Amino acid sequence: MERSYIKDLSEGAVKVSGFIETIRDKKIMFIVLRDISGAVQITIIKDENPEIYEQAKALTPHSFITVEGKCVFSEFVRNGGKEILPTKLTVDSIADVLPIDENSAIDLQMDYRWVAMRGRKDAVMFKAQTVLINALREFLIKEKFVEINTPKIIGAESESGAGVFEVKYFGDKAFLAQSPQFYKQMAMAGGLERVFTQGSVFRAEKSNTYKHATEFTGFDLEFAYPENLDAVMEIEERWLAYALTQIKEKVGAEIKEVFGVEVNIPKLPFPRMKLAEVYEQLEKRYGYIEIEEEKDDLSTEAERKCKQLSLDIFGSEFLFVTDFPAKKRAFYHTRINGVPQGYDLIWKGTEITTGAIREHRLEILKAQAKEKGLGKDIEFYLQFFKFGCPPHGGFGVGIDRMTMLLLEIPTIKQSMFLFRGPNRITP
Amino acid sequence: MERSYIKDLSEGAVKVSGFIETIRDKKIMFIVLRDISGAVQITIIKDENPEIYEQAKALTPHSFITVEGKCVFSEFVRNGGKEILPTKLTVDSIADVLPIDENSAIDLQMDYRWVAMRGRKDAVMFKAQTVLINALREFLIKEKFVEINTPKIIGAESESGAGVFEVKYFGDKAFLAQSPQFYKQMAMAGGLERVFTQGSVFRAEKSNTYKHATEFTGFDLEFAYPENLDAVMEIEERWLAYALTQIKEKVGAEIKEVFGVEVNIPKLPFPRMKLAEVYEQLEKRYGYIEIEEEKDDLSTEAERKCKQLSLDIFGSEFLFVTDFPAKKRAFYHTRINGVPQGYDLIWKGTEITTGAIREHRLEILKAQAKEKGLGKDIEFYLQFFKFGCPPHGGFGVGIDRMTMLLLEIPTIKQSMFLFRGPNRITP
Repeated sequence: MERSYIKDLSEGAVKVSGFIETIRDKKIMFIVLRDISGAVQITIIKDENPEIYEQAKALTPHSFITVEGKCVFSEFVRNGGKEILPTKLTVDSIADVLPIDENSAIDLQMDYRWVAMRGRKDAVMFKAQTVLINALREFLIKEKFVEINTPKIIGAESESGAGVFEVKYFGDKAFLAQSPQFYKQMAMAGGLERVFTQGSVFRAEKSNTYKHATEFTGFDLEFAYPENLDAVMEIEERWLAYALTQIKEKVGAEIKEVFGVEVNIPKLPFPRMKLAEVYEQLEKRYGYIEIEEEKDDLSTEAERKCKQLSLDIFGSEFLFVTDFPAKKRAFYHTRINGVPQGYDLIWKGTEITTGAIREHRLEILKAQAKEKGLGKDIEFYLQFFKFGCPPHGGFGVGIDRMTMLLLEIPTIKQSMFLFRGPNRITP
Repeated sequence: MERSYIKDLSEGAVKVSGFIETIRDKKIMFIVLRDISGAVQITIIKDENPEIYEQAKALTPHSFITVEGKCVFSEFVRNGGKEILPTKLTVDSIADVLPIDENSAIDLQMDYRWVAMRGRKDAVMFKAQTVLINALREFLIKEKFVEINTPKIIGAESESGAGVFEVKYFGDKAFLAQSPQFYKQMAMAGGLERVFTQGSVFRAEKSNTYKHATEFTGFDLEFAYPENLDAVMEIEERWLAYALTQIKEKVGAEIKEVFGVEVNIPKLPFPRMKLAEVYEQLEKRYGYIEIEEEKDDLSTEAERKCKQLSLDIFGSEFLFVTDFPAKKRAFYHTRINGVPQGYDLIWKGTEITTGAIREHRLEILKAQAKEKGLGKDIEFYLQFFKFGCPPHGGFGVGIDRMTMLLLEIPTIKQSMFLFRGPNRITP
């Protein structure tokens, strides 16, 4: 007999598989069995079914079992009113006493992530993340982007600024890529014109915040011949709106039910503000005065306050912030009249993207690198511009951070399959 | 004016961008300009267009330019009979004298991969790879798989046998995952039931062959409750047939034209043979006698010969080989009567997959690990089975190797964006 998903059960003979969420025994044994689709009650009446009852006495919470039996609908039963009266019980795997429960500290839950992720919440999270990534790809493939898989093992640091992990490489030294930035630009020099890439990025930074990890999944794209910076932002806003539309349609109701969060489809275009305007408005509207030294960049606190600001002025969860001063932006951002042609995108008060038009003219790029004190590390990168390179721009997002913001999970530790931080490389 | 793709050009005013494939100057200057979609001739007549002619004299092969002008169709012109008479020339980027040409040694071409990848061949390759990956995902998402992003930085070796790279991790030691194997199994214990994952895998092996790399892109999946080994093979064959169907439909003609390779949609089911039968048939049909010590596994030569064997017997490019002896298979393969429930899948004479039903019963798993002499390294992995785990199976493919075989490229070095090997971590 073929196994059914619990949410699809109809009355009659059925076979289901899953893990035991709860088990109660008082002559009648009630088991709540959960699979990826939902939960159902298994009812074992001792007097009517002594053999299976005996067998079931060995069961422990979170053991995996397969049950064949008769499914009946009853208004007295929770979990959608379905109940199974078993005729056969197969024990797939007995669970030891669980090392955690839902009240355990986050760190202990991370030690036993595979136990902690069982149940509806993470099932919905992974489903939402799957729809997110798939939508991001679908949109780009329709727009004629091709996928590239950029190397993570590299011979020189991939982007200065962030810390880098060193790898022992056959008696030599290599590094882990901090971003696919230089490589997607290499693809531009390679004439691929429109590329995206998904993969791990590595940051050797001792940041213990709600939004940082030493390894996370980046999703980056780059394309040739953007008309101007607005054209870059326009692709990003259409891209994210497409993804959020897909997510709302396919998982919106479950997200609402399980996380209590409404998925909002953003209106286009996303609002745009210059950095100086952001600080002006924060002061004018909320009396928030940033200290002068911080005003060259978006401080963590200002970033957070952009959530309210963008909602109040524009009714938007998103805000593009432009016109950062050159000293705070990467050397490879093109400048017009000294202003870097780049932006940060803020979603719900957290930065999710830095995007820009890149400097593709070798002499200017060299000068800007020199100005930032960059030398040997980027020599290999400068080579990419020597034999011709079209103008190009791009951006990237972190999938785990997006998931965290989408579902309003308090920390990135719980919006990833397995978190990696300065003090965590297990399990 | 908006830029057009070269292959979509119609007569009249146009704007195109790309790099200069060839340039010839004899009073009339002929430039072949290529973008991602195709190539077109730009014709600059000195007498009629002295300013642009002067400007164009500075151009070098592989420089990137943008041209506005009038497109005319002419039977005297190659490259699809289209020619542009320019009214405006913008030099996006001048190329230095190229360090390589098509006759350069492969290794030199790899040094300048971004120059080597320009042109039709790599454009078609990346397009084919994009369709391949997208189809692999599409199929699985329809079959209710969810995506997980497994960590590459790990605290213990992820699978014994293959060499592992060591990472300096904040004064401590970490490793790079040799495969997502243990983590997709962890997702099974986590109750996710059906998962896939795409990402870099790392092998610290000094293999210098046509099919090995120290870093490549793996695509792996795992699912709970397979009925038997045949059910695992069945998912894989349907999955690959779906992908090849998509590839043939979307890029088949271009692959034929550029690589001279026919994309064949395989018939289902793929043929299955036991290892011993393979050796029997190789001897019977081709007089190939394997040395006795090699017969416990598929030797490289036997693997290669499976191409002909499967074509001759079954008319298939594919062959599932089953019933390997336990001593040659991983400790985590389930055994029935001592026979590991696993297989290798051979495509065009090269192994592309090892698949199996996994042992999910902790005590048996421990015993099999002990038999292989495995201890401390896999302790973390054994934990995944302690608190319940459903029966499960799965497999994986290497995207770069698949691409190599699909397009019949002689070496994996040229079927990747950037190859990594024992002697190569650049560019």
